[in-house]
Amino acid sequence: MARLLKRLPNLPPAERALRVIAGRWKTFVLYHLFDGPKRLSELRRLAPSASQKVLVQQLREMEAHGLVEREIFRQVPPRVDYSLTTLGRSLAPIVASLCEWGRRHATELDELDRVAECETSPIATFLAAPFISAARGRARR
Amino acid sequence: MARLLKRLPNLPPAERALRVIAGRWKTFVLYHLFDGPKRLSELRRLAPSASQKVLVQQLREMEAHGLVEREIFRQVPPRVDYSLTTLGRSLAPIVASLCEWGRRHATELDELDRVAECETSPIATFLAAPFISAARGRARR
Repeated sequence: MARLLKRLPNLPPAERALRVIAGRWKTFVLYHLFDGPKRLSELRRLAPSASQKVLVQQLREMEAHGLVEREIFRQVPPRVDYSLTTLGRSLAPIVASLCEWGRRHATELDELDRVAECETSPIATFLAAPFISAARGRARR
Repeated sequence: MARLLKRLPNLPPAERALRVIAGRWKTFVLYHLFDGPKRLSELRRLAPSASQKVLVQQLREMEAHGLVEREIFRQVPPRVDYSLTTLGRSLAPIVASLCEWGRRHATELDELDRVAECETSPIATFLAAPFISAARGRARR
């Protein structure tokens, strides 16, 4: 696992999780890597509005926090693949529930027209299924 | 529901959720309000290191985002109670899973000595139970 560039400050555990997950393009990167490894060029194509500098910076932070692994293939031109660690993959149900809740929040504040559908990948949907069913069960009560 | 002081920018739904939940003292306030309404003075006693200014600012933001309701009792000295809305209470399983994941993250990065136990309230534990059981079931596989 990559050595931490900067240790996380002492924080309560939920705030620690938020510090690791929150950040421009981080949930986006997670969504796309839940499906499998991606090259930097693929991630850039999926997020044309992200600058390469910002995207690489977020990926480095995710690597330092143990979510992402980078593999460099020594070829011409050099190829860099990013994939999720087990720790990164374990965020799938949390990201899915954040997405569901974000849409619920937008609905209650009459702003649903301003948020997209949840971009779900097959694995994220599969991993989140027990939680989402449980949450729906509670909502129906 | 309080009128939004400032509309949330157009964000993907998971990032919207993170924008609403992340913020110094917000998960702390949620934890304590899951148990029932609290006066500002009680919240201040529970968080002696928080300045009143910052705590009130976070509570106002949570009110503007539809998570918290404020009730003012016209008495001397005036009393202000804060409680969670239905939307705020619906965050209980998410906060519980963020807390569990934060501890898992600290464990994997050999920093468990730097994070506290999850502060669970009876209602938060109850609401999160189906999700936590499902997550544990998956981890054992």
